[in-house]
Amino acid sequence: MAGSTWGTIFRITTWGESHGKALGVVIDGCPAGLPLTEADIQPYLDRRKPGTSQITTQRKEDDQVEILSGTFEGLTTGAPISLMVRNTSQISRDYSDIAGCYRPGHADYTFDQKYGFRDYRGGGRSSGRETIGRVAAGAIACKILGKLGVQVCAYTRSLGPIQADMAHFDREAILHTTTAMPDCQADEAARAYLEETKKAADSVGGVMECMVEGLPAGIGDPVFEKLDANLAKAILSIGAVKAVEIGDGCAVSTRLGSQNNDAFRILPAGQQTARVSKATNHAGGILGGISDGDRILVRAHVKPTPSIYQPQDTVNREGQEITIQIKGRHDPVIVPRAVVVLESMTALTVLDAMLLNMSARMDSLERFYL
Amino acid sequence: MAGSTWGTIFRITTWGESHGKALGVVIDGCPAGLPLTEADIQPYLDRRKPGTSQITTQRKEDDQVEILSGTFEGLTTGAPISLMVRNTSQISRDYSDIAGCYRPGHADYTFDQKYGFRDYRGGGRSSGRETIGRVAAGAIACKILGKLGVQVCAYTRSLGPIQADMAHFDREAILHTTTAMPDCQADEAARAYLEETKKAADSVGGVMECMVEGLPAGIGDPVFEKLDANLAKAILSIGAVKAVEIGDGCAVSTRLGSQNNDAFRILPAGQQTARVSKATNHAGGILGGISDGDRILVRAHVKPTPSIYQPQDTVNREGQEITIQIKGRHDPVIVPRAVVVLESMTALTVLDAMLLNMSARMDSLERFYL
Amino acid sequence: MAGSTWGTIFRITTWGESHGKALGVVIDGCPAGLPLTEADIQPYLDRRKPGTSQITTQRKEDDQVEILSGTFEGLTTGAPISLMVRNTSQISRDYSDIAGCYRPGHADYTFDQKYGFRDYRGGGRSSGRETIGRVAAGAIACKILGKLGVQVCAYTRSLGPIQADMAHFDREAILHTTTAMPDCQADEAARAYLEETKKAADSVGGVMECMVEGLPAGIGDPVFEKLDANLAKAILSIGAVKAVEIGDGCAVSTRLGSQNNDAFRILPAGQQTARVSKATNHAGGILGGISDGDRILVRAHVKPTPSIYQPQDTVNREGQEITIQIKGRHDPVIVPRAVVVLESMTALTVLDAMLLNMSARMDSLERFYL
Amino acid sequence: MAGSTWGTIFRITTWGESHGKALGVVIDGCPAGLPLTEADIQPYLDRRKPGTSQITTQRKEDDQVEILSGTFEGLTTGAPISLMVRNTSQISRDYSDIAGCYRPGHADYTFDQKYGFRDYRGGGRSSGRETIGRVAAGAIACKILGKLGVQVCAYTRSLGPIQADMAHFDREAILHTTTAMPDCQADEAARAYLEETKKAADSVGGVMECMVEGLPAGIGDPVFEKLDANLAKAILSIGAVKAVEIGDGCAVSTRLGSQNNDAFRILPAGQQTARVSKATNHAGGILGGISDGDRILVRAHVKPTPSIYQPQDTVNREGQEITIQIKGRHDPVIVPRAVVVLESMTALTVLDAMLLNMSARMDSLERFYL
Repeated sequence: MAGSTWGTIFRITTWGESHGKALGVVIDGCPAGLPLTEADIQPYLDRRKPGTSQITTQRKEDDQVEILSGTFEGLTTGAPISLMVRNTSQISRDYSDIAGCYRPGHADYTFDQKYGFRDYRGGGRSSGRETIGRVAAGAIACKILGKLGVQVCAYTRSLGPIQADMAHFDREAILHTTTAMPDCQADEAARAYLEETKKAADSVGGVMECMVEGLPAGIGDPVFEKLDANLAKAILSIGAVKAVEIGDGCAVSTRLGSQNNDAFRILPAGQQTARVSKATNHAGGILGGISDGDRILVRAHVKPTPSIYQPQDTVNREGQEITIQIKGRHDPVIVPRAVVVLESMTALTVLDAMLLNMSARMDSLERFYL
Repeated sequence: MAGSTWGTIFRITTWGESHGKALGVVIDGCPAGLPLTEADIQPYLDRRKPGTSQITTQRKEDDQVEILSGTFEGLTTGAPISLMVRNTSQISRDYSDIAGCYRPGHADYTFDQKYGFRDYRGGGRSSGRETIGRVAAGAIACKILGKLGVQVCAYTRSLGPIQADMAHFDREAILHTTTAMPDCQADEAARAYLEETKKAADSVGGVMECMVEGLPAGIGDPVFEKLDANLAKAILSIGAVKAVEIGDGCAVSTRLGSQNNDAFRILPAGQQTARVSKATNHAGGILGGISDGDRILVRAHVKPTPSIYQPQDTVNREGQEITIQIKGRHDPVIVPRAVVVLESMTALTVLDAMLLNMSARMDSLERFYL
Repeated sequence: MAGSTWGTIFRITTWGESHGKALGVVIDGCPAGLPLTEADIQPYLDRRKPGTSQITTQRKEDDQVEILSGTFEGLTTGAPISLMVRNTSQISRDYSDIAGCYRPGHADYTFDQKYGFRDYRGGGRSSGRETIGRVAAGAIACKILGKLGVQVCAYTRSLGPIQADMAHFDREAILHTTTAMPDCQADEAARAYLEETKKAADSVGGVMECMVEGLPAGIGDPVFEKLDANLAKAILSIGAVKAVEIGDGCAVSTRLGSQNNDAFRILPAGQQTARVSKATNHAGGILGGISDGDRILVRAHVKPTPSIYQPQDTVNREGQEITIQIKGRHDPVIVPRAVVVLESMTALTVLDAMLLNMSARMDSLERFYL
Repeated sequence: MAGSTWGTIFRITTWGESHGKALGVVIDGCPAGLPLTEADIQPYLDRRKPGTSQITTQRKEDDQVEILSGTFEGLTTGAPISLMVRNTSQISRDYSDIAGCYRPGHADYTFDQKYGFRDYRGGGRSSGRETIGRVAAGAIACKILGKLGVQVCAYTRSLGPIQADMAHFDREAILHTTTAMPDCQADEAARAYLEETKKAADSVGGVMECMVEGLPAGIGDPVFEKLDANLAKAILSIGAVKAVEIGDGCAVSTRLGSQNNDAFRILPAGQQTARVSKATNHAGGILGGISDGDRILVRAHVKPTPSIYQPQDTVNREGQEITIQIKGRHDPVIVPRAVVVLESMTALTVLDAMLLNMSARMDSLERFYL
């Protein structure tokens, strides 16, 4: 139970560390009969790839995915799908600067305390490269969801003080801007800000959001397996995320009930969506832990990259206070590359809830088996 | 997997609905040899009891807990502990006003969509009374944690615009103020504000926080079972919570790395705590999903009680738009009674992580078995 | 994870010990919309009740079940179903004879070793009374299976040397013979044999079988979650069972492949069952861990009741060799009362596998959600 | 939850099918600090390798294992261990003979019924090659158990009518005889018998046993997670196993209690083993689902290889009755190669139970954390 598995029916297990031979994921419980090739997965991995711009690290990572099992004649068979990405560009540099000390904001100290030692090369298992497996599995979850009419879309909402203007929302921009913002103007401002910060040997945080559209009402379970509870866990399991909001999130705590309740209404006949709808969506599409048919909205607050080029006070394994200056290549911001991780974790969580939901009612069982 | 179970080793399963015969919880995996009687649990249940003041509902709920199994001669035996609270004051009023319609902000619509119908008496399973089982189990988790030197303490941070001043932090006040605020002055202001809101037939939201002190470093697992990820799920599984923050939470997204990193330092010899410490605690005691030995801090944003006495627009099961006016007794604010639920969910999560941590290292195994 | 939970989707958690206040079970994940009252469950509990004949213990146990939650207007709601049986006739006798010593064949020694002490009254958690929760939950599983066209039927195959003749198979006899044999002649012989053994202050073992009919092909999962693997665990989790066979079981190990393979054939049109069938059923209805549409057959070998009235050599907690003579009321055979436990565990296992199977194929998902 | 995961704390997920690119396993929850290289694992894989004698298939399978993650400087780090074996000799032969028809005794029909189609090359996921992942993980479990003083040893007990004589038990012989029997004379007789059967184009079944020595008392959990229940599931999850016995197994059903109970006794001082012991071990080292400190003994009955060279009656996917003659290379008996799989599954199950046991008592927690 060391923590590398996610999901109950659509269940993924990721493996691999920053400087190991490879990283990957095993997906067990993928429904049989889904058309699947590497071409379905690679574009998602490419979205988390660094080296594509000034604001992401200059490392060259090929990250070509290989399907090792679970498909036959282009279809999933119901057997576990094993996906692997070989590590090709992990330079075997000298890690003596960090091997014996604890970088502020990183998991160096906590891993040492838990396991007695750690793989200090590039952060080992706590590296962002661990998310390769999540994204590869997320690509498959997104494909299945797409076939069921459910769309998942994540993007950068803000970087430091620069916010995307949602009035300018442009879905295409997410994939084309270097910041993964859905607003080209904000992207430009954000890039300028990041350039500045980089020059100051510093890093910035930001906010990312994810929308789920087309999800039917009734998904999620009461009490501990609420859809929003699982989304919160999914999202906080992404390194560097320090807060999660559902719908209007933090804002609800200073509202009155009369302001915050979403009135139900009936959509005029002839529309494609569910007949019952809501006049507003403060709830973010979830009531009592169960989807209400409206758009799901989640928000993740991401801390600034802890690796900065300024000298920092810290301690070493021998218990001495020291000053370190971190070398290597680091993104001045985590958000743009994490957006596809957020999209993946959201898709994995929503899909699993949909699969679990299929046996919630006696009439569903009877329809299936009789 | 309908969602009523929490935890891997210390595993609880809650049951019961607002107007059923009883509510309760089964705790499986409680270590043997813990002294336990009803007197350990009742005070926690009393903290979530309504009717103690003007600002909570005037219902009389006795909520006396009974231990049905799992102890012998005052000690836990390792067998499941079954705890039950009989429902005694659920008035069998006329529910025809809500049986056929969907109250805004409640789970009426989503339960109907998921299950085909619902137990509409007092919210059924989605009622706040479901938390009785969580709190009863949480009391036991807190007792075990106490024996291991770990203290969990939750309180109200703000109600609507009124914030507790942490400079006045007074742990005793939490149990004695009607708002569960750790600041008597803020409590007074908050009570005035709530009285006003109540007169306006409205309700308010608020913020609650929980601190964990004395937790050793090394608790929590990487990747998907991060301690903060599990805390986020635990907390968002509490009805009405719409956002969770760890440590400085949302604030990190507008910070620079140089501001947000917590420098490690060495505590002078002779102190009781771990020798390695941090100069600041923006991280809230968790790095890479694993506790760092510092104080854990989590924050939950709670929406206003959705039941308000004003007329509201909604729809009925027949698909007609209607106006409803909700009767019955309702708290104008959820937070003060939810504080002990937050404390309970935090304790359950932290304890389970501590139990899982015991087998993380070969040297621990060898010490245990050789 | 102390072991009191069974199932993934239809998940039960039992609680209670021999001499506690009550015993019970919480069923989470029961599909909504099933008609359910105590009258569906009580007949199953009555089948495991002692005191109905010479060959079972003379204790009077009322064992009246009470539904505490999870139904509304006679239907399951999807919320956890809590079932309880109060202990009414557990005589508070003097246990000083066994409190400090280890009865041969019982779990006294192993519980003491694991937990440091034990509830020695009537066996505590290791008592056969623990199965009350299993049987109460099994009754619900059987009712659901019945609605899906699946019948589960367990019976006593042999007691000591006396075997039921399957050529005389009479389903009604199972419920009416005191041995739960499906053969009245064998029942008579078995009763005589048991009477004899009882006089000799001894006890006997036996064999019980369970058939599942009407189960569609395709149920069960490959590798570790094979249907037969889960059945084996389910059955060996019943106290006193020491061996499990699927289909022809042990007999296959001395067969040739040409004798053991079941030829497939086509059933003539017009028949109700699946078109593909097998000429023989050595496999017991399971191939590769997945049901083949044929009758499932499992067999459990049960040891003689370890409590006998003869003096026995053993040791006490102080590490001294002693001789004990066990007092109290004990069945000279476990099998007749365990038959309904076997039926329950089989039903629980098969139902859970059917629920899990619903999401195995993309076309099922598309049919469900589009 | 498609079934490829085993274990709660020491949790493995296998992947790969007979003719895929590779097969492997991810082990999550392996304690940190275990010395581990491929050399620890390869000998176990070599034991399940075919082509070493007349009685196993003549395929050449290299089956070289590669550690892809989870170790650093020769030690496990606590991160998931990913192990892979590339498929190198899976000849791409013409499968048109079996693609459209259902081989008797195989999972062809049931996979088609479950998933709608199947990977028919060499049995796909239901192939015995799936056990590569189990054995690779089992090697690690055995290494850890060895460090805790626990030895696991499996062997062939009988092939068809030929039984190993346990009076001649020779542990070395297991690894050196082609039948994996611990008795060289029986091995010779068995080989002659197999040669004969092979000439008759037939196959034979057999029995294998596994002993666990050095396991402390107290391992396993009551009720559903009994050690023997989990062993039964582990063993019945091995393809072709149709029955499992614990200790004296089936024999207990015709015994008297006075014959079957194992008397406790005190071992004379000075001996290394636990002071309390048993005069006999009919129970096979498990009482009430918990280990009693004595030797664990389990037995598995294996059916004859279903692939035989004789013509067999069956049906095809079009629903026609046909006769098939299976081509290719097949072992006339499964047992000798399955022995190491039995050993692996036993080790995985026992180790997981030991890890879970560490948090069973308050005094253990206090010793660990205070």
